[in-house]
Amino acid sequence: MPPVRALWFDRKGLELIDQRALPNATRLRTCRTVEEVADSIRTMVVRGAPAIGVAAAYGMVLAERQGGFTPARAARLLASTRPTAHDLFVGIEAVRSAWAEGEDVVAAADRYRRSVVDECHAIGEAGAPLFTRRPRVLTHCNAGALATVEWGTALAPLRVARERGADLFVWVDETRPLLQGARLTAWELSREGIPHAVIADNAAGLFMRAGDVDAVIVGADRIARNGDVANKIGTYEKAVLARENGLPFYVAAPRSTFDPGTRTGAQIPIEERGEEEMRSIGERQLMPTRSRARNPAFDVTPSRLVTGYVTPLGVMKPGGLGPIFRAARRRPAADRA
Amino acid sequence: MPPVRALWFDRKGLELIDQRALPNATRLRTCRTVEEVADSIRTMVVRGAPAIGVAAAYGMVLAERQGGFTPARAARLLASTRPTAHDLFVGIEAVRSAWAEGEDVVAAADRYRRSVVDECHAIGEAGAPLFTRRPRVLTHCNAGALATVEWGTALAPLRVARERGADLFVWVDETRPLLQGARLTAWELSREGIPHAVIADNAAGLFMRAGDVDAVIVGADRIARNGDVANKIGTYEKAVLARENGLPFYVAAPRSTFDPGTRTGAQIPIEERGEEEMRSIGERQLMPTRSRARNPAFDVTPSRLVTGYVTPLGVMKPGGLGPIFRAARRRPAADRA
Repeated sequence: MPPVRALWFDRKGLELIDQRALPNATRLRTCRTVEEVADSIRTMVVRGAPAIGVAAAYGMVLAERQGGFTPARAARLLASTRPTAHDLFVGIEAVRSAWAEGEDVVAAADRYRRSVVDECHAIGEAGAPLFTRRPRVLTHCNAGALATVEWGTALAPLRVARERGADLFVWVDETRPLLQGARLTAWELSREGIPHAVIADNAAGLFMRAGDVDAVIVGADRIARNGDVANKIGTYEKAVLARENGLPFYVAAPRSTFDPGTRTGAQIPIEERGEEEMRSIGERQLMPTRSRARNPAFDVTPSRLVTGYVTPLGVMKPGGLGPIFRAARRRPAADRA
Repeated sequence: MPPVRALWFDRKGLELIDQRALPNATRLRTCRTVEEVADSIRTMVVRGAPAIGVAAAYGMVLAERQGGFTPARAARLLASTRPTAHDLFVGIEAVRSAWAEGEDVVAAADRYRRSVVDECHAIGEAGAPLFTRRPRVLTHCNAGALATVEWGTALAPLRVARERGADLFVWVDETRPLLQGARLTAWELSREGIPHAVIADNAAGLFMRAGDVDAVIVGADRIARNGDVANKIGTYEKAVLARENGLPFYVAAPRSTFDPGTRTGAQIPIEERGEEEMRSIGERQLMPTRSRARNPAFDVTPSRLVTGYVTPLGVMKPGGLGPIFRAARRRPAADRA
């Protein structure tokens, strides 16, 4: 099968694979307006920090074409969709600045998309050697092509390692509540014939302790200057369990995820989503109607639990992130969440 | 509302609340034969180590009434249903020995049921003082009345603490894959008006790290002589996270859960259940049909992560379990899984 792409821009507008419908149906959503792009990000038709950054870049393009938007107003609309991922603000800024200076906005968005794809491939090249002798890898959520347009962040080193002959096996945390592991990561891996097993998030510790896991790799939504990592809820649990079991814990991310404007993880805004994501799946109620639920979408993993950051500039240690922060893509202070 | 009871024995046979249907429907299953009891345990109509012990005790009664069974054959049928919980074998043995010696089997089963209920109440009395100054408590799976006939193990100290005026709040891990936390623990707590919130298993770490959890308490399926604890998958993860965050981690269990015949957790057989429990909820497929799933039902928490064991004889430390093991209920070596 051809490689997965999460989105593309054509004459009709921004085409998104509706990630809520996978793996049961492959449906496209065509966004013709910036409002439709904002809604698609908010409702997670498209998700994954690098992918929502690229979607937002094309949302800016649509706003410019629609008319009635200033660059700043379009940027505010898109920036209000989700608070945690840094890439969102970087993607918006890549087109906002071009638009404000009268440059070609489509060219600016295309350039941003290509840079994200190229950086994901570079992450794959940098990270692949980590897994040749550690081929049984656990990952959380989806940090694959769907989350990043192509290649993925966490999945990129695994794809490149496999191309080079590594005998990989991937443990896929199902990743409640929205099951991005079971629905999306497993879908990507099964399309490519990469051996894997989906497990309850509860079972990761058992398989680590049993010696069935060699390493853990995840993506990120935002990385603070001190190396703290915001990523999908449950990432912190896996990092603590990896440390407890003597396993390396890697975080893979492009430049757009590193936020020079955030000093530590404590400053990263953590989105809390609606209770309904916890209450039911399909028609099935999962809990009593009178009970409350809490639904934080992300958590923060402190840098001391991270073995290495797999970046387009190479694998870096906590405390050694200077080069990637100097190369990081900035956004105007006014946009900061 | 009246207190919940998971099961009772009457003229019709053994009546079980069908725990698979909760919280959406309160349905009874009436078992008139030992085969129906065995099926109810295997398919988790009734679950929770103490409750399946009591159900199996009444299953022995039904076998005796049916005719065509020897005590040993009935015991083997019931013992083959699930491998991990020690209480199952203790409940079977309580009636098998009476039957083999020509005693009244109903009286033996009733005695066993009453002892479990009384021990759960004693667990509540012993554990309640732990939570008066640590009122925000996280629990995993369901170790409530449904798991134990009445009172519960982990929930008993919380119930008694609340009767004594503690201002409790309970964090309820939803407990994938079968959601015993979201479906059963939340149902018990909402019936009694105890404030609580259901969270994804992934979110427990975030709330611990944020300082929103004061203590963790869980039940157990089997406790080895060295204090290692087999309990619902994910328990080990919560124990590691409690330790990482400096929180006490308590395990509550009656005598029937302590297994003098098992030296360490490594000897406890861990049940692996079918992939279908991971694959779908109701009509909704959760993962690609071509992907595999793994579904271990329990894990083992090493004793070094346990702060205290809340037993009918009081709260004990790891290394100080002599008294409860001397009081533990034995089962014949031949039955050992």
